[in-house]
Amino acid sequence: MEKAFHYYMPVKILFDYGVSQKMASYIAGENVLIISDPFLYQNGVAQRIGESLIGKTVGYFSDIEPNPSCESVDAAAAAARALKADCVIGLGGGSSMDVAKIVACLTRDEGSIYDYYSGGTKTFSERKTMLICVPTTAGTGSEVTNVGVFTNKKAGIKMPLVTDRFWADYAVIDPELTYSLPPAVTASTGMDAFCHAIEAYWNKESQPMCDMLAMGAMQLILRFIKRAYDDPNDLEARGAMIKASMIAGVAFSQTRTTGIHALSFPLTTEYHASHGTACSITLPAFIRLCREGAAEKLQALSAYLGYADAGALADAVEALMESMGMPTRLGQLGVREENLEHITKVGLGAAIIQLTPAVMNEQTVYALLKGIL
Amino acid sequence: MEKAFHYYMPVKILFDYGVSQKMASYIAGENVLIISDPFLYQNGVAQRIGESLIGKTVGYFSDIEPNPSCESVDAAAAAARALKADCVIGLGGGSSMDVAKIVACLTRDEGSIYDYYSGGTKTFSERKTMLICVPTTAGTGSEVTNVGVFTNKKAGIKMPLVTDRFWADYAVIDPELTYSLPPAVTASTGMDAFCHAIEAYWNKESQPMCDMLAMGAMQLILRFIKRAYDDPNDLEARGAMIKASMIAGVAFSQTRTTGIHALSFPLTTEYHASHGTACSITLPAFIRLCREGAAEKLQALSAYLGYADAGALADAVEALMESMGMPTRLGQLGVREENLEHITKVGLGAAIIQLTPAVMNEQTVYALLKGIL
Repeated sequence: MEKAFHYYMPVKILFDYGVSQKMASYIAGENVLIISDPFLYQNGVAQRIGESLIGKTVGYFSDIEPNPSCESVDAAAAAARALKADCVIGLGGGSSMDVAKIVACLTRDEGSIYDYYSGGTKTFSERKTMLICVPTTAGTGSEVTNVGVFTNKKAGIKMPLVTDRFWADYAVIDPELTYSLPPAVTASTGMDAFCHAIEAYWNKESQPMCDMLAMGAMQLILRFIKRAYDDPNDLEARGAMIKASMIAGVAFSQTRTTGIHALSFPLTTEYHASHGTACSITLPAFIRLCREGAAEKLQALSAYLGYADAGALADAVEALMESMGMPTRLGQLGVREENLEHITKVGLGAAIIQLTPAVMNEQTVYALLKGIL
Repeated sequence: MEKAFHYYMPVKILFDYGVSQKMASYIAGENVLIISDPFLYQNGVAQRIGESLIGKTVGYFSDIEPNPSCESVDAAAAAARALKADCVIGLGGGSSMDVAKIVACLTRDEGSIYDYYSGGTKTFSERKTMLICVPTTAGTGSEVTNVGVFTNKKAGIKMPLVTDRFWADYAVIDPELTYSLPPAVTASTGMDAFCHAIEAYWNKESQPMCDMLAMGAMQLILRFIKRAYDDPNDLEARGAMIKASMIAGVAFSQTRTTGIHALSFPLTTEYHASHGTACSITLPAFIRLCREGAAEKLQALSAYLGYADAGALADAVEALMESMGMPTRLGQLGVREENLEHITKVGLGAAIIQLTPAVMNEQTVYALLKGIL
């Protein structure tokens, strides 16, 4: 018997070199707010997109920080309301796109993010403001998910919000926006995308369409990530990587992630590793751990990717990470043995960890971490 | 440089054994019209679904014929209006689902199908009536496309109508509905699905997400079609086949089809071959023909499917068809040499033929047909 599954991914995807300069015809309405981080505003990327929107009134909100706070969301929503925005564009990595998702809702729905999230009691009405996501890294896949992750500074927690209102109208995938990514960011964001794909693939909630997409995305990443790392202007590699990141995003948008992402949370917040580094540092160990629980699937994947077995795949992934100067041992992030118990506990607090195809408890997670200390 | 592409497929997909008996909670509104062919009404399949919709008022329209006419569409629309349908369910093969697509529009939009199609000047407003597609064969993929094909008897033409209004709200994929398919139908509809997948894959409009899905669908079909043919109650094979058919549908919903489908039109209308037979009869020849124009992709596909090269794949597909009693020569359909010129001409009249990765003109198409006479 085949497993039951659902699939729903209503985002319109546009992929092309330079397509982010050609969005005007897709935008209904007059007033457009472009949400980005300060860097994308200062280097002119946001304005170049704004200037391409001939005939539109364009505003900018460019104060988005990594791990965006609820206060930033409310400030961006105020800007959108002041502009009477008909369309919100999230330009950047996951942070800017996540903020754009909720701001597109808050443009017409009243109140603060706190009213809808983390104890809030309001629910979003049908979203009338258009939402366009434009990634500038090849990693998060946020442009094709219905999830936004926001940080409640008061309570000291980072929490996801999931709603069908967050599916963008358009995901605009333009490899040209990634040419300026530094090699270290190319590496860490690209390996984050690889984690999305493999976590969708071995997920207890895995399903056939996502398996197919995840396998294809992993093949693209293994083929092209080092080329994009070595030569930031390798157009084919840049195109392949941002495409693979989006496709991996489609895959995990249906399944969620697993232990890799669960354990990345404490590594990000407490050791200041980038999200992609915090994920991929446990990737080889998780491949080895899941060899039992997902034996058949990992064998099929390894063969598809050109490796004899999952052990060889894990070795290859680890060597690839080392070749791009990425840490592969927790000690390199400053983690010490006495910290492992706490990291284990925080990781086990994330429900997604139980979607891993392996027993996940204090002993097994501690042992996994100890093995890569 | 990677090729530009678009992707949009907003249908919610539900796959499970018995899921067609559990649709009540997905249906908004009170009045539901189930559209099917007479056979699915007489054998009680339509009523069993209707009876599972506790609390709904259910009507039936069961006069859908193969290659449905505009007159059938208008009659079904009248039934939907009389019922004040909030939801239209298309139950069956492509014909019933295609009619349901347009009836869901005509429930609230005025007039006849002729007003919207083949010279008509009206356009559909936003569709308010829910549309659910429930396939009972594993072949057409119509449940996940935005295309309806209707026959204008007055003008003697069969024409597709394509609109975003035709994306169903739900595609409900229930393997149990296919257990009663006779082996010959399992074979022909399953090979139709294989054609959808390979035509999406080698299509001049091919794109990476559809390539991945198409490859996966082809692998499933080659693994499971003979099992489903040999044992209609092989639950795993039935699940795999209807899943593969849906996934192939997603793939070609983005790319359209190619020469195989173009040439099937005259073979269906003039030689009364079933759609799946009319498609697959030219499949091995098209694989051989496309070896040049799609060399790299066909080599990758062949390796993925476990064959040395495209020639070996073509031989295997032909042997598989023969093992299921399917015709592989045009003579078996009653075609004679003097008919080939006409078939060539009609096939070349379908615009999709030029999406084939090979030169398609009077000489090449004639030669292909002559080779399998």
